[in-house]
Amino acid sequence: MKTPDVLISEVGPRDGLQSVAATMPTADKLRWIDALHAAGLREIEVASFVPARLLPQMADAAEVVRHAVTLPGLTVMALVPNVRGAEAALAAGVHKLTVPVSASAAHSLANVRKTREQMVDELRAMADLRRELGPGVGLEAGISTAFGCTLQGLVPEDEVIRLAVQCVEAGADEAGLSDTVGYANPAQVRRLFTRLRAELGDRAGAAHMHNTRGLGLANCLAAYEVGVLTFDASLGGLGGCPYAPGASGNVVTEDLVFMFEAMGVATGIDIRKLIAARAPLQAGLPGEAVYGMTPEAGLPKGFVQPSHPNVHA
Amino acid sequence: MKTPDVLISEVGPRDGLQSVAATMPTADKLRWIDALHAAGLREIEVASFVPARLLPQMADAAEVVRHAVTLPGLTVMALVPNVRGAEAALAAGVHKLTVPVSASAAHSLANVRKTREQMVDELRAMADLRRELGPGVGLEAGISTAFGCTLQGLVPEDEVIRLAVQCVEAGADEAGLSDTVGYANPAQVRRLFTRLRAELGDRAGAAHMHNTRGLGLANCLAAYEVGVLTFDASLGGLGGCPYAPGASGNVVTEDLVFMFEAMGVATGIDIRKLIAARAPLQAGLPGEAVYGMTPEAGLPKGFVQPSHPNVHA
Repeated sequence: MKTPDVLISEVGPRDGLQSVAATMPTADKLRWIDALHAAGLREIEVASFVPARLLPQMADAAEVVRHAVTLPGLTVMALVPNVRGAEAALAAGVHKLTVPVSASAAHSLANVRKTREQMVDELRAMADLRRELGPGVGLEAGISTAFGCTLQGLVPEDEVIRLAVQCVEAGADEAGLSDTVGYANPAQVRRLFTRLRAELGDRAGAAHMHNTRGLGLANCLAAYEVGVLTFDASLGGLGGCPYAPGASGNVVTEDLVFMFEAMGVATGIDIRKLIAARAPLQAGLPGEAVYGMTPEAGLPKGFVQPSHPNVHA
Repeated sequence: MKTPDVLISEVGPRDGLQSVAATMPTADKLRWIDALHAAGLREIEVASFVPARLLPQMADAAEVVRHAVTLPGLTVMALVPNVRGAEAALAAGVHKLTVPVSASAAHSLANVRKTREQMVDELRAMADLRRELGPGVGLEAGISTAFGCTLQGLVPEDEVIRLAVQCVEAGADEAGLSDTVGYANPAQVRRLFTRLRAELGDRAGAAHMHNTRGLGLANCLAAYEVGVLTFDASLGGLGGCPYAPGASGNVVTEDLVFMFEAMGVATGIDIRKLIAARAPLQAGLPGEAVYGMTPEAGLPKGFVQPSHPNVHA
């Protein structure tokens, strides 16, 4: 099998499940994560370490992590908003911590009740903790509202890049850019990731794009064209900031994988098994809407995945 | 106002209305076309000249054309599958004829009961007729199933390019490429349009992309990157080959215009007026589903169109 060209980082079990009202039972979460792993996903954000009274959907975070780390070859990631969360995630045995840091001053205060500077300080404390408790664990900063903000509108590009650099200086291994509210366009994506790579080199992180205005895949394509190789996406488009039926937030993993595989860019993922992983998601969240154009339309007649030639040829 | 950088060719009144079961009353069609024109659309495919017993939705084609040609600055286009249709369209006063020619041998026989060679002969006869009856009228060939076919699967790229060249040799002013069934991917789009331009230069025509598998805008972006400047799209995503709710065929005009305008690529279209043009469409087709992520999510806070700075600043 060809070595994958890009890394698709599945965020559904965290970003997706956190955004829906229902709580998926733990056993269903584990079955879903198993199915994602079986499809070839190599990185999954499996949980968020936040107080259960704030997010009951994530009360079983430690248990989910303890299962996920048994799956061979999988990088198990968890979102942590603060030192306390990082401590719990490290204790559970995650491979990688991801920390959201808002580029929008207004969004930062509204979302975590901290200024951007205070979040960088918090990140520094998490990096210190990681060095002490889990020196082999990864730590990424996700710069949210990097392409605009529903509260303040425009987010100056200089501020986005400066904040990403500050996060790496504070101890993050990498900093990625998130289009939290679906404002990004391909020209802006190319501009910002080009600047990010110029500043951070290999420490420039993932593209986390939303499909709120239909531009999710075009923005991923633009990011790929300027060298981004890691892309966040959510199975069935679960999560993000849905505004209306069909107008989901997160880029749909199935459609993103289809785009890359059709282009001959290997993801390492078996798209038929990926589509099959919608079943355990739906079983665990009965009645919840899932999206995805490729699953609905089906694969093109005669479609062959270069990365899985023997399976479906 | 800045000169537009790209031409968005609206196909809803033909491609869209032809695909739905209901027939939009003529007065509603005219109101819808007026609203599209008022939003800044400069080219609209307003009708199909085919026997009314086959397509009752298009029985008023001549009347629609006669109204549309009174709108200043508008190029009025009609689809014609054969010489008889071309004759009627020329008599009605269209500015431009568009002729679908299938690159898939199987699709050509199934769709028009002609081989590809017979369609090129038909096109040659239409070009002769145009020279005689309307020397100022445009004639474009739309190479359908250019990126794959639900009947035969793969369509060899050499055959697509050869057919496009044959169409221009037969008398078409330009030949564009259509992803009739939504199989295209950005790498393929770049490859085929690059070859088309190498063969035909300025006679390389429009990109007609579908969003069946969610890649519509990414494919338009890829086409733009290799020099394509004319894009077909349909208001509300009406028409194309819908497979499932939300999985519409045609690229949604509103989302395409949003992408380009957000990138700073001027379309000449006022996106707020474009979104307002959904009202007459919906009034004329009560109960019909219309799509579009940008209309559902709304424009970003503080969004300004460089091409219409005085209107909404």
